[in-house]
Amino acid sequence: METFPGGEKNHQRKLRFLFGIHNHQPLGNFDFVIEKLVRTCYKPFLETIKDRPFLKLAFHTSGPLLRWFEAHEPSIMDLIGTLVASGRMELLLGGFYEPVLAAIPSEDRKGQIQMMRDYLERRFGASPKGLWLTERVWEPDIVEDLADSGVAYVLVDDRHFLVSGFGRSDLHGYYLTEKEGKRLAIFPINEKLRYLIPFRPLEMLNEYLHQIAQEGGGVAIYVDDGEKFGGWPGTYGWVFEQGWLRTFLDLLEKLEGDLLEMVTFSEVLEQVPAKGLCYLPIASYMEMEEWALPPERSLELKELRAKLGDEVGRFFPYVRGGHWKHFLVKYPEANRMHKKMLALSRLLKEKGKDERAKEDLYAAQCNDAYWHGIFGGLYLPHLRHEIWRRLAMAEKHLRTGEELSWDILDLDFDGKEEVWVHSSEFSSLIRPASGGKLLEYTLFGPETNYLNMLTRRFEAYHRQIWERLEGGHPVEGGEVGSIHELKKEVEEEIRLDLMYDPYERGAFIEHCFPEGVGLEAFRRSDLRELGDFVEQPFSYAIEDGRLMMERKGHLSSPDGRTEALYLSKALSFSPRGEMAAHYRLTNPSREVLTFHFGVELNLFPLALARGRGKLIVAGEDRDLGETWAAEGIHEFHLVDQAAPLTLRFFFSKEAALWCFPVRTVSQSEQGYDRTLQGLAVMPHWRIELDPGESWEGEIRWELG
Amino acid sequence: METFPGGEKNHQRKLRFLFGIHNHQPLGNFDFVIEKLVRTCYKPFLETIKDRPFLKLAFHTSGPLLRWFEAHEPSIMDLIGTLVASGRMELLLGGFYEPVLAAIPSEDRKGQIQMMRDYLERRFGASPKGLWLTERVWEPDIVEDLADSGVAYVLVDDRHFLVSGFGRSDLHGYYLTEKEGKRLAIFPINEKLRYLIPFRPLEMLNEYLHQIAQEGGGVAIYVDDGEKFGGWPGTYGWVFEQGWLRTFLDLLEKLEGDLLEMVTFSEVLEQVPAKGLCYLPIASYMEMEEWALPPERSLELKELRAKLGDEVGRFFPYVRGGHWKHFLVKYPEANRMHKKMLALSRLLKEKGKDERAKEDLYAAQCNDAYWHGIFGGLYLPHLRHEIWRRLAMAEKHLRTGEELSWDILDLDFDGKEEVWVHSSEFSSLIRPASGGKLLEYTLFGPETNYLNMLTRRFEAYHRQIWERLEGGHPVEGGEVGSIHELKKEVEEEIRLDLMYDPYERGAFIEHCFPEGVGLEAFRRSDLRELGDFVEQPFSYAIEDGRLMMERKGHLSSPDGRTEALYLSKALSFSPRGEMAAHYRLTNPSREVLTFHFGVELNLFPLALARGRGKLIVAGEDRDLGETWAAEGIHEFHLVDQAAPLTLRFFFSKEAALWCFPVRTVSQSEQGYDRTLQGLAVMPHWRIELDPGESWEGEIRWELG
Repeated sequence: METFPGGEKNHQRKLRFLFGIHNHQPLGNFDFVIEKLVRTCYKPFLETIKDRPFLKLAFHTSGPLLRWFEAHEPSIMDLIGTLVASGRMELLLGGFYEPVLAAIPSEDRKGQIQMMRDYLERRFGASPKGLWLTERVWEPDIVEDLADSGVAYVLVDDRHFLVSGFGRSDLHGYYLTEKEGKRLAIFPINEKLRYLIPFRPLEMLNEYLHQIAQEGGGVAIYVDDGEKFGGWPGTYGWVFEQGWLRTFLDLLEKLEGDLLEMVTFSEVLEQVPAKGLCYLPIASYMEMEEWALPPERSLELKELRAKLGDEVGRFFPYVRGGHWKHFLVKYPEANRMHKKMLALSRLLKEKGKDERAKEDLYAAQCNDAYWHGIFGGLYLPHLRHEIWRRLAMAEKHLRTGEELSWDILDLDFDGKEEVWVHSSEFSSLIRPASGGKLLEYTLFGPETNYLNMLTRRFEAYHRQIWERLEGGHPVEGGEVGSIHELKKEVEEEIRLDLMYDPYERGAFIEHCFPEGVGLEAFRRSDLRELGDFVEQPFSYAIEDGRLMMERKGHLSSPDGRTEALYLSKALSFSPRGEMAAHYRLTNPSREVLTFHFGVELNLFPLALARGRGKLIVAGEDRDLGETWAAEGIHEFHLVDQAAPLTLRFFFSKEAALWCFPVRTVSQSEQGYDRTLQGLAVMPHWRIELDPGESWEGEIRWELG
Repeated sequence: METFPGGEKNHQRKLRFLFGIHNHQPLGNFDFVIEKLVRTCYKPFLETIKDRPFLKLAFHTSGPLLRWFEAHEPSIMDLIGTLVASGRMELLLGGFYEPVLAAIPSEDRKGQIQMMRDYLERRFGASPKGLWLTERVWEPDIVEDLADSGVAYVLVDDRHFLVSGFGRSDLHGYYLTEKEGKRLAIFPINEKLRYLIPFRPLEMLNEYLHQIAQEGGGVAIYVDDGEKFGGWPGTYGWVFEQGWLRTFLDLLEKLEGDLLEMVTFSEVLEQVPAKGLCYLPIASYMEMEEWALPPERSLELKELRAKLGDEVGRFFPYVRGGHWKHFLVKYPEANRMHKKMLALSRLLKEKGKDERAKEDLYAAQCNDAYWHGIFGGLYLPHLRHEIWRRLAMAEKHLRTGEELSWDILDLDFDGKEEVWVHSSEFSSLIRPASGGKLLEYTLFGPETNYLNMLTRRFEAYHRQIWERLEGGHPVEGGEVGSIHELKKEVEEEIRLDLMYDPYERGAFIEHCFPEGVGLEAFRRSDLRELGDFVEQPFSYAIEDGRLMMERKGHLSSPDGRTEALYLSKALSFSPRGEMAAHYRLTNPSREVLTFHFGVELNLFPLALARGRGKLIVAGEDRDLGETWAAEGIHEFHLVDQAAPLTLRFFFSKEAALWCFPVRTVSQSEQGYDRTLQGLAVMPHWRIELDPGESWEGEIRWELG
């Protein structure tokens, strides 16, 4: 409509330039990492902009990072305070612990935002109106809670608008959306500005800003991660030593008198009318959509984009991947944390306000460990541990003084029931429908889930490793066939750990396997399984304080015959969390059954996240990273010096023992990381059962 | 996990076959259309399956259609009743009036489902657990309301799962999703079965069912529109006369003893465990995603799919378009109905329960008129009218006994305020920010919005018409340039109406145009505008019971000079809805200003939706479809015989008058429809203003 003659032309106004920064470090990240960022990034950035009074900016720092600054580097808090007081810096809200807001309960969402608001008001006297959306994960159903929390606007990528049907030239401004009569303004962050700042020569930025202005765009919107200014590899030299930031500010200051006007988001909301109404679909940035897909699907998406070649940019809005919540489907470990978090959130509401538990619950909602892109996240044991630790702390508060008791519920929302056993000292989850295995074993004392494992899975970025292995294909449940053909360029160590598990790791997984299968086969998850107990449903009942599980299963012989084999296991727990598993195997068939019976136990000592630990086996110390076999064993000790705690395992029948460190191969900035995710231990016995005969044995553990 | 030896193999079970039918006709559709469907489709289908006792099916019929059957063809109700009583037919819930559930307020959503539940219980004694999702428009935030409404499961397309990251072979079963601890089962409808039934030879179906069974798929899920069985062009012959349905049932009956088991959805929920957890993004079927995009974008999406050629199927999950709610952005007319509906829904809640108003409000939520794919919908005046009619009825109930009053609010959620004036007899909306035009004028007596117009817009399917016009390009605000080059194969009549409006039609739109511009230019929305009043912001205030609007605008002369021109208009309404617009044009410049001043009035008489009407101009009758010009006019009458009502228009100064019928060109099953969407009438005056001089004039209308 602005084409009518004599109308107020947009080009008669200066281009409003919005500049914003978002800082966050995962909860549980190492101090030395943050210390380095303070030195090379957070502090020099703030010090540089402090002396340039023309610059206005929006600024978001996640709660844990603000607390870290407060404790370790209060000078940063002072810098922020000064900039806020001068009216140049507009602080942004967020969930305090940087949760994906769409993935947490409505009440917690509002609570996290309120916690952030209280903090910013108390510490900086700020009254923020805008919100930084964690990982720009947008779902429309957060609109109401945001509006109810006094949030006037949020920031998303321009992609969110493009996929909905808006054109790029429509996006130099903000839109309104509504839900149930509540309204919220949404600013699209300009992708091209993110690409130019701080990585490209300033001439390109200068040119692009003029281009936006010429096209009559009213507002240019830039917001990005603060870590790009000195924190990313190579950027400290570029941004500070070579002076990019200084010359960038020079350019803005020069343009400010002429082309640009520096404003805050709140000023734009007051001065500029919305460009219209919008309804954005569930969206995040393009890479997130790719990562959220299963690996085969994400490779297919890559293939499509490669196929489009030069036109991939043009067709960008129509080429889409998955969405954030599918990480919970893709990684059962993430779902397990998430659904435990939801369960504790419900418990917190049932039991009334417990401020300590609430703080821990909110902390456990920090997003980083719930997903995995190409770097870190879920694959980092210390980040997962921090979530489980805060879940343990929250549950400890909520269960103070409780007796041992059992709940039966579908905790993970897949339609099958789990058994949740807990007391004032521990919490454990058993899944009868999946082989009756333990999937969580949290001790409140050491604030650790000793089953915080990660299963080895094919990831899309493994493809390039496999492609370098001539003739090699990823094989589920095994390793690549022809080891002798491996090419040298693939690191020997990576190759050794590049293998996949056919089921989620846990404890009390029962295997039946033939003679001749050894430790290496166990390590490869390739036991030549004869039984049908792994991942198969067990019937279950709680009787006399024990969880009785049973399966009328089968045993195949290597020649292909199948006989019936009954397995029962009874799990009992002490209020302290010490436990015993009593096994009985019965041969109801008319044949003699001979096989090896192994009980797989996967363990995540706190030592893996923090400090040291060891195993003591037959009086001998073993490093946690060792692969070993032993025979004639009645007990072994896991000495978790970090906790400190010793788990003592006892076998009622002398067992052979295999142990190996479970390592994953994941991508990192440096190439590939081999990460120790836990120990797989398996006591096993050779069993021969006459028709009608039974075998019994017990595994128990004590804490010391 | 089903690969472990000796496990219970899925292929040992029969394939469970789920068969479902969904029937719906838009609220406001013509009786003769439904009568024909009863004869050729609904009734023969039910009569045929009644005699095949092996067949179980899920059955959804929207509320308005059920009420139609009850009133006009109760034998269908008896057939349904018999099948339900026999346990063979499982009825499905839905919003009673077939709303897009994600697009209506939470309370209404639950109310619509409850209304359907009450109806099905009362009429058929049914206790339905499943819900048919209107147009399969899924948004995750409906989960809670559905769960709270006792809905155990919904049906969506398999596409919803594919775009999230699931593979086709994962989809022979159902999944669970959750929101705030509430759970819901979701069944993916098999696309290939929808393609095979009833259009392809039965051998292909037979083969595909065997294939699913061989792949170990537990459940084959088919649900589709009932109208495909006899209602779609050509299907009556195929399905009934040539016996497709009979042989299809023969095939199923034969397979039932061997390969298949006929079950209901509820039986599957009880017998078969869920396949896991899912979080589906906002989605609908592929075509809907394409239609929801703006036309240029939908053509780009088409281009991408064409580019992929044979691989379009393989890359299907990654190629995506827009989503349903973007229709509200794309079509302001749809948004206007939607936001009026939301406003009345809020009013209903404020005023407490009014069962009559609630029924009308729910009726006004019926989806069909809110969107447009390739056929009908928003483009059909009688469907839009039915929505406005029910909105009028709801508002009439809610405003009984009210005085005339004014509200100022951003009713359409675009960040700019509207003025809503209403009494117990009418309701009207004025938009100062968009040229101060009227956008709604609803009279409660005739239950009609006399501004229920449709603006002429480029639609993606117009492209093929333009491509047939050699050298022709769609030109916004005008018609294709070179008329003499038109090829014969494009129908003369279509070409004549294929033009686009640069702004949304309404009333009291002020034009300034030069000498020599005529009626045809008006018809083409190509007046060579000299003013800057159209769509530009007016200041406004309510003073002495009148809405005073003013704009200090400009007048360009054809030679490019621009002078100031001030325009004020004062709108006043009587409690009956009669109104007057008083104009004053002032020349504050030092030049003499000469121009033509026109006030565009667009009108939608009820006659366009139903029955007959005419205009009386200077004592002469004019057909509503006529294009005409007249001079020296002081009044004209719109005789809306369908209402019945006469709107009498008076001009304080003798005016020249132009009028043309606004027709859109939209696609239909038969080719293209030219649809009369309303009348554009424009009184206009030649004005010459000396410096400092003013011109005044008044337009008013009376009702009789």
